[in-house]
Amino acid sequence: MQSKDFLAARYTQIREQSVALCAPLTAEDQCVQPMPDASPTKWHLAHTTWFFERLVLEQYAPGYRPYDSRFNFLFNSYYESLGARQPRPQRGLLTRPSLGEVHDYRRHVDSAVQHLLQRIDDERLATLCNVLELGLQHEQQHQELMLTDILYTFFSNPLLPAYREHVVLNAPSETAERDIQWIEIPGGVVEVGKEPRAMDFAFDNEKPRHGVLLSPCAIADRLVTCGEFANFIEDGGYRRPELWLYDGWAAVQAGGWQHPLYWLPAGAPRLAIARPVSQETGTHDWYTFGLDGLQPLREDAPVSQLSYFEAAAYATWAGVRLPTEFEWEAAHDLPGMRQLAQHVWQWTRSSYDPYPGFQPLTGAASEYNGKFMVGQLVLRGGSVATPAGHARATYRNFFAPAARWQFSGIRLAQDI
Amino acid sequence: MQSKDFLAARYTQIREQSVALCAPLTAEDQCVQPMPDASPTKWHLAHTTWFFERLVLEQYAPGYRPYDSRFNFLFNSYYESLGARQPRPQRGLLTRPSLGEVHDYRRHVDSAVQHLLQRIDDERLATLCNVLELGLQHEQQHQELMLTDILYTFFSNPLLPAYREHVVLNAPSETAERDIQWIEIPGGVVEVGKEPRAMDFAFDNEKPRHGVLLSPCAIADRLVTCGEFANFIEDGGYRRPELWLYDGWAAVQAGGWQHPLYWLPAGAPRLAIARPVSQETGTHDWYTFGLDGLQPLREDAPVSQLSYFEAAAYATWAGVRLPTEFEWEAAHDLPGMRQLAQHVWQWTRSSYDPYPGFQPLTGAASEYNGKFMVGQLVLRGGSVATPAGHARATYRNFFAPAARWQFSGIRLAQDI
Amino acid sequence: MQSKDFLAARYTQIREQSVALCAPLTAEDQCVQPMPDASPTKWHLAHTTWFFERLVLEQYAPGYRPYDSRFNFLFNSYYESLGARQPRPQRGLLTRPSLGEVHDYRRHVDSAVQHLLQRIDDERLATLCNVLELGLQHEQQHQELMLTDILYTFFSNPLLPAYREHVVLNAPSETAERDIQWIEIPGGVVEVGKEPRAMDFAFDNEKPRHGVLLSPCAIADRLVTCGEFANFIEDGGYRRPELWLYDGWAAVQAGGWQHPLYWLPAGAPRLAIARPVSQETGTHDWYTFGLDGLQPLREDAPVSQLSYFEAAAYATWAGVRLPTEFEWEAAHDLPGMRQLAQHVWQWTRSSYDPYPGFQPLTGAASEYNGKFMVGQLVLRGGSVATPAGHARATYRNFFAPAARWQFSGIRLAQDI
Amino acid sequence: MQSKDFLAARYTQIREQSVALCAPLTAEDQCVQPMPDASPTKWHLAHTTWFFERLVLEQYAPGYRPYDSRFNFLFNSYYESLGARQPRPQRGLLTRPSLGEVHDYRRHVDSAVQHLLQRIDDERLATLCNVLELGLQHEQQHQELMLTDILYTFFSNPLLPAYREHVVLNAPSETAERDIQWIEIPGGVVEVGKEPRAMDFAFDNEKPRHGVLLSPCAIADRLVTCGEFANFIEDGGYRRPELWLYDGWAAVQAGGWQHPLYWLPAGAPRLAIARPVSQETGTHDWYTFGLDGLQPLREDAPVSQLSYFEAAAYATWAGVRLPTEFEWEAAHDLPGMRQLAQHVWQWTRSSYDPYPGFQPLTGAASEYNGKFMVGQLVLRGGSVATPAGHARATYRNFFAPAARWQFSGIRLAQDI
Repeated sequence: MQSKDFLAARYTQIREQSVALCAPLTAEDQCVQPMPDASPTKWHLAHTTWFFERLVLEQYAPGYRPYDSRFNFLFNSYYESLGARQPRPQRGLLTRPSLGEVHDYRRHVDSAVQHLLQRIDDERLATLCNVLELGLQHEQQHQELMLTDILYTFFSNPLLPAYREHVVLNAPSETAERDIQWIEIPGGVVEVGKEPRAMDFAFDNEKPRHGVLLSPCAIADRLVTCGEFANFIEDGGYRRPELWLYDGWAAVQAGGWQHPLYWLPAGAPRLAIARPVSQETGTHDWYTFGLDGLQPLREDAPVSQLSYFEAAAYATWAGVRLPTEFEWEAAHDLPGMRQLAQHVWQWTRSSYDPYPGFQPLTGAASEYNGKFMVGQLVLRGGSVATPAGHARATYRNFFAPAARWQFSGIRLAQDI
Repeated sequence: MQSKDFLAARYTQIREQSVALCAPLTAEDQCVQPMPDASPTKWHLAHTTWFFERLVLEQYAPGYRPYDSRFNFLFNSYYESLGARQPRPQRGLLTRPSLGEVHDYRRHVDSAVQHLLQRIDDERLATLCNVLELGLQHEQQHQELMLTDILYTFFSNPLLPAYREHVVLNAPSETAERDIQWIEIPGGVVEVGKEPRAMDFAFDNEKPRHGVLLSPCAIADRLVTCGEFANFIEDGGYRRPELWLYDGWAAVQAGGWQHPLYWLPAGAPRLAIARPVSQETGTHDWYTFGLDGLQPLREDAPVSQLSYFEAAAYATWAGVRLPTEFEWEAAHDLPGMRQLAQHVWQWTRSSYDPYPGFQPLTGAASEYNGKFMVGQLVLRGGSVATPAGHARATYRNFFAPAARWQFSGIRLAQDI
Repeated sequence: MQSKDFLAARYTQIREQSVALCAPLTAEDQCVQPMPDASPTKWHLAHTTWFFERLVLEQYAPGYRPYDSRFNFLFNSYYESLGARQPRPQRGLLTRPSLGEVHDYRRHVDSAVQHLLQRIDDERLATLCNVLELGLQHEQQHQELMLTDILYTFFSNPLLPAYREHVVLNAPSETAERDIQWIEIPGGVVEVGKEPRAMDFAFDNEKPRHGVLLSPCAIADRLVTCGEFANFIEDGGYRRPELWLYDGWAAVQAGGWQHPLYWLPAGAPRLAIARPVSQETGTHDWYTFGLDGLQPLREDAPVSQLSYFEAAAYATWAGVRLPTEFEWEAAHDLPGMRQLAQHVWQWTRSSYDPYPGFQPLTGAASEYNGKFMVGQLVLRGGSVATPAGHARATYRNFFAPAARWQFSGIRLAQDI
Repeated sequence: MQSKDFLAARYTQIREQSVALCAPLTAEDQCVQPMPDASPTKWHLAHTTWFFERLVLEQYAPGYRPYDSRFNFLFNSYYESLGARQPRPQRGLLTRPSLGEVHDYRRHVDSAVQHLLQRIDDERLATLCNVLELGLQHEQQHQELMLTDILYTFFSNPLLPAYREHVVLNAPSETAERDIQWIEIPGGVVEVGKEPRAMDFAFDNEKPRHGVLLSPCAIADRLVTCGEFANFIEDGGYRRPELWLYDGWAAVQAGGWQHPLYWLPAGAPRLAIARPVSQETGTHDWYTFGLDGLQPLREDAPVSQLSYFEAAAYATWAGVRLPTEFEWEAAHDLPGMRQLAQHVWQWTRSSYDPYPGFQPLTGAASEYNGKFMVGQLVLRGGSVATPAGHARATYRNFFAPAARWQFSGIRLAQDI
């Protein structure tokens, strides 16, 4: 078990990181919600705080009274056992409490948590640590969402503002070489999921560790690049139904998809609106929008912000397929594997199903993962927006197949 | 023609009034858009400025260059002749430009307008005055919308914040007496619309003055009160289809209407969320939400924020009808008429059709009124949110029959 | 008052006409509902029968028992006072009762009505005649709808079947001459609406007769032709927002309107699907779909199946306007007026508002007209699908401004 | 390989079975489409015929010309490689071709297929047999859909007509005993999927046979009964979010689900409409609607027409879970297993993912299964509506988790 001091410091560091991520943002930026799935920054700041209040303070701090009883309605996300809540699509209407008041709320709860941590008796310390750690992992997940959601907010603005001129998160600027190297996975029974004896944190959906029987296959050593994806587009990728899943082709047609969400072709009206006098416009074939704003396409960079549908269509076009989540996990430690967790999450062809013997956590935390186990696909790895130390080989990220606003890309696989 | 100095002062006064209305609001409050029809305060501030830039400065100030060419896309409302624009339902996504930048924009344009006004040659002064006055009337219309829209924004917030604790706009706190007095209108040909020789401003939709033939009727001396409307509700008004127009009853059912939009019955869950510990909750039958926040129903106050459908259903329930816009105008100067323009706009049963011989303004201003002349109903009078001096007896306000977020109420009429 | 025998014969003739209209149709054709506004033929046949059952037999025939008590739910259209009903968009799901059973129902009710008519005492005869006549007028309105709705059904079928190879309804095959002649209306007070002393039938919405004050204007002697409308299209009519009302332009964009609903340009994919081997396809610029199926555009024929939005845009393009309903009525008897009632209903710029002193009928019939008096526009005249003798100079037809599936066209007017 | 004569007879038998299923239906019944997923009977009859025309006759019969080239547009379901098609939600608009014409089409194609089969050279016979068999299996799948879809059609009719008074399909009237017996599955590697050497037909999605590693578990010997499901309802099953998946609870709320789709509680308004004078109504707690019309709930019958969401919620309420598709397949031959394939398809918790090494068929048939492998759940077993001989232990049926109109129910499982 971690020491109190270590945990206290870790708590402070992670909570401060959430605030640090907001430095480039105005209060207005942090308030709006451009689509139901992209929550306001301020809401993320408050919701993660509410999580500590309800799951930690209310459970472990005797006599703790809610900072503001109205916040339970405002900042509950989806916990049915914790009461009614603001409908998800309407989180962007919460101009009150103000951003300043939300920061006050954060400080109040942080102080109470630290106070509780110092005074908890030894008997309850271990349980407290578990739930505190859950809260911190939860906060880190929302740190990634804060970035994906503000990026969507800025992309929804005709001015296409940049989050930061020069983005230095945790991604090494590695350059993809031309050809994918195929790394063989021999097949047979492999163990997947969280090692039961390991002390480090894992979500309930990574358990129990169990064997799966793999067929031999090969997995790409690196991610698919923007240049490669541009070839797919130029080869008619978005106009050829035979490359797409049925639901994917329906999404292409209904949404008018012609390229990844954050790509803009030279000559796009949006470019002229955002950069009316720029000399640069039109000299490149593609521009992409990212945390550093509008930039010419970097051919060597991993393609990102793809839906599962787009990833699967690309794989079909390339004559191969996406890996299963178990192939991905089995390949994680193999020599030669690169770009595992620092660039983009990698769609697998595995539906987000429970592991055999899956047991959700108890109490409100039981709603954390298990109830989403239908209709979603597993992503593995980690991204430029994932906090350092958050992801791991057994980590199961998941999104609906049409989700296009995450740092999500492609690693290929094939049967052998 | 007004003197330059008078107009310059009037310009300053009206423009400053827009800013003054924002005093109680945070930048967050001014940014969001709770429904497509309710624009953000910041957008109103910028759009009215853009109106002066495009219709005044660009036309009359030689060499004037747009403050920021991107703003034409952002702040054009519906002027097809002035280029593409931000889709109306997405005005709330404009966290940039910031509120501060919009105020800079306002000051820049104000300065350029004042400069233009001082230097314009006499030949063009008259035309300039006309379009400047149009811009000021336009600004005043948006001042009312700023209040109606921020009220909707606050009502969309579970905390139900107040715009101001004590609202002192321009409405005298007149008390309705119990019984309506019926004022007779004799019938015959009456002249309606703007007097052609009068120097004061009127919109194109108030012209030309023309005769209409009225049948004898009587019109109520005062507005319907909240107490009277509560009787309608208690008599099953929202559950009796025979009282409603076909489209109105469809709206009741589709929207689950049970009372006016901003009324909350004692025991409503929203009351408990907004005021979790208040002692007061539940001791009144109804609460209403207004610029001064949540308040117990004032029985004597004119009922407000009604749709045409609700107004027409009430009139049917009361055994009478709504006036036509011409009856209203004919009654405007009759002795005994009260509450004409300071409380709520009054729905008439008149569709918003063009007057015989109607000619829209020229240029972009031709899109100001005429293109909305289908599917809307005329309201007459003025409201607590209307700037002083803006409304007049011939003024034709108009909204779609389902609109519930305006300061709109009921004056009754009947055949005799 | 009409004699019993006359009325009995008239009843038989009109009821048989409904059945005769179905001769070219299969049971399948008569069952489906291609959009909520276009009801199945079978439903029309049953609903008009139900109308006689509820408003005539149940009121006047002592001891009459409903033919099938379940039919009240199935075939009530919108009469709130007569109970719950099948939702309008789901009328096409009624494969049972079968078409044969509906004809049995018709015969049963017809027999009971005739029996009642022969036995009614003199005292109640006059009232019975009134409501019987209302039922027959109602049946005739549905005869027109049967044709408009089956036409929409056939247009919804990729095979584009014809209702009849050679349509001979009641329209003279009159050819439009090139130039419109403008017929002057002098202005002044004119009387409109149903003559109170006239014995012939009129709906409540045509009453009371009253004076209106007209300004001088001129009205076109004939309807706008397809050839003229083709010029509008070729001049960019559907791409120029300045020609359209705001709601009209929104409809153009949302619906992708490029021409009237039933027009197909040469080269349209629908042509190739419907006539895969036809030699004829493509040798004309336009094809139109009508009761006689797909035909090359007849340049001289009045343009039909237009929405109000399209009619108003055309008038704006032509530099004139649509008439008001009162101008139309005042012009009805003027020398030189042609194509008044045999080709297409003519959109007026008048909203469907109540006449001063309007009193709806009593009982269930009160829901017949009055509750639709919002959001609709008046059409005057009559069409190729209107039963002979049904329309008259004071007749007020009405539809929502986006309705495109009626026999509705354009007569122009202008101020003078 | 089957003999020509055997296959010819099998072809005739299966094709005639489709026609036999329509015996109780009118042409009207067979024409309409009550929701996008429930196609008209006539469309099923034509589409399965089109399948033989395009995949068999066009490929194997030299010089075969399409019966009607327009039918390719009308009766293609979702085969992108075979051209454009009637949008799925609009299949119910095809009143033409008539039912009689579709039967002509069937006879024409049947004759051509039989002729081809007799004359095919030996070299191509094997391949022809494969695709003919695919066409027959396809026809059988549509036979089940014809029943599920007509049932939905009849349920959409307020009269609630019965398909047949006495339904004798292939289901033995077995009575469920009170207590479920739990049958243990030992765990370890089991082989699943189609035996490669077996001669009988299997779809591509059942291949290749491969090993999966199971954990020990137990599976219920019988299906959940209506009586058991009624207990779930009475225990608040549809009102307790903690029992539901997130998407399931959203479906409950959006759809107002309170019981299975085809259940009606005593006192439901629909009962009074359908059976206005029945003495029986209200003496039972529940009525269910099935092929034999409205009947009092049979407590011992397997619950049917459930969505995956409802099945999963029931399992959670019962403290157990649904089986995976591999557990189901492994248990298929175990002693004591009952009600495997004659009553209802059984939802598994397995997403419909491709088997390792999955290869779709070639040509148009490649679109048969693979492109649906996202967002769906696997059902195993077979139902009362499944043609005899169609299902098998390795058969993978699949539907979206919200689908409620199939013969789909619950077999439980649990970890041990």
